[in-house]
Amino acid sequence: MSGKVYIVGAGPGAADLLTLRAASLLQKAEVVLHDDLVSSEILALCPASAEIISVGKRCGQHSRSQEQINALMVWHAGLNKNVVRLKSGDPAVFGRLGEELDALRRANIAFEIVPGITAASAAAASVGITLTDRHAASALMIVTAHNIRGEKLRADGFDPQRTSFAVYMPGPDYNRTARELRESGVPAEMPCVLVSHAGRSSEQRCFTTLMELPRLKVAAPALLIVGEVARQHLQNTGIADTLGDLPTLLKEEHSPRIEHI
Amino acid sequence: MSGKVYIVGAGPGAADLLTLRAASLLQKAEVVLHDDLVSSEILALCPASAEIISVGKRCGQHSRSQEQINALMVWHAGLNKNVVRLKSGDPAVFGRLGEELDALRRANIAFEIVPGITAASAAAASVGITLTDRHAASALMIVTAHNIRGEKLRADGFDPQRTSFAVYMPGPDYNRTARELRESGVPAEMPCVLVSHAGRSSEQRCFTTLMELPRLKVAAPALLIVGEVARQHLQNTGIADTLGDLPTLLKEEHSPRIEHI
Repeated sequence: MSGKVYIVGAGPGAADLLTLRAASLLQKAEVVLHDDLVSSEILALCPASAEIISVGKRCGQHSRSQEQINALMVWHAGLNKNVVRLKSGDPAVFGRLGEELDALRRANIAFEIVPGITAASAAAASVGITLTDRHAASALMIVTAHNIRGEKLRADGFDPQRTSFAVYMPGPDYNRTARELRESGVPAEMPCVLVSHAGRSSEQRCFTTLMELPRLKVAAPALLIVGEVARQHLQNTGIADTLGDLPTLLKEEHSPRIEHI
Repeated sequence: MSGKVYIVGAGPGAADLLTLRAASLLQKAEVVLHDDLVSSEILALCPASAEIISVGKRCGQHSRSQEQINALMVWHAGLNKNVVRLKSGDPAVFGRLGEELDALRRANIAFEIVPGITAASAAAASVGITLTDRHAASALMIVTAHNIRGEKLRADGFDPQRTSFAVYMPGPDYNRTARELRESGVPAEMPCVLVSHAGRSSEQRCFTTLMELPRLKVAAPALLIVGEVARQHLQNTGIADTLGDLPTLLKEEHSPRIEHI
């Protein structure tokens, strides 16, 4: 008889964007293996008796290898512990979930996945836009800059003007990200919103165009939304009228609970 | 001075897949305008004193027009009420959010968007797969069958074999959905998972191929995941070996809390 591993999405960072199920599992956890991006506010929900282990990977510096993370899950579950593997965002979206599931299945460990709020949803909510507006976007393409680089999207096959892109981990080389998107068929003047630390008190938003994107510098983690849907927000705030000859970048710093009017 | 409108994602249906923020807002709501798909379990969180108004649109039968919904939000906020506009899933993904935001902005009503778990995340968690496995998918394309029909994806431009598709509202005409995806370049033998009522006690999952998809009949709301990522689950359960000559559909009925081993 072994314990169970709960693979839990921690969402974008704010503790109250956890699901009720995630919060309840954290409160009962005996061992928590968490990513770097999981906030201390969220870890504070765990009981004092819980063993809390950071297994983060940050900026290429892997504090634990994927094999070590897998081994830790299997080891603690084998000790009949209630294990929570806490991943930022939603585990199924760029979370390296596949490797961890394979390890659990090979070891015959029972598991359950608890979905989380993914960064694209959190960023869109903060900025006050929809990702799939029927007048502006018929599809949402979720990619990472890493993948854009490795394999071209060649997005011109499916009308990039009617697609919203949510680019995970778009930095630090925004020049390259913008170039790859442009080579994929997205026009240089396409509006975009870069949201750093979505939903946290340190949240920062920059409204710009793909052409101007390389001039941005924001703190990771960030999410980039590219598409006509970004223009909507600008139009609503009266900024879009000047977007054609945008002289400088538009940068807003906000608390996450800003009132949109 | 007018009240505020909270546009809240209710997630896939199970009450404990609400965020803590959403639950807290429902507990303080004075007026709740909710979609048809929001479960009674979730509405039970609202105080007895709250005015709860169904504004659902179901299977083409609009109980309220979009204009009526907009007017209800503005009216109740104008009475200085705490209004929650409760939308199933995540408001920014196929939630007709744009029209509602426009109405609030025009009326100068303060609002805040609370993101929710979108159906693709919920379905992937239930089935035990990742949507973006680095060995199988470099992008996730979120579409609705409605949009596939209106405008071709012409997905062959960006390698549909390396893309996962999450198709919202894929039915009832699965024949057409499958044909449009095939015309977009997705091979007929591509594995898919159809998840109906993801995360609820009535959840149903069908594993099949795009070719066999039209033979399925499941209850709405459903979400269709198409791509190599679906094969992973089959391989892990030993089903994939026979997928090449799948004689009949594989249908599983589960409680949402099934233990994957």
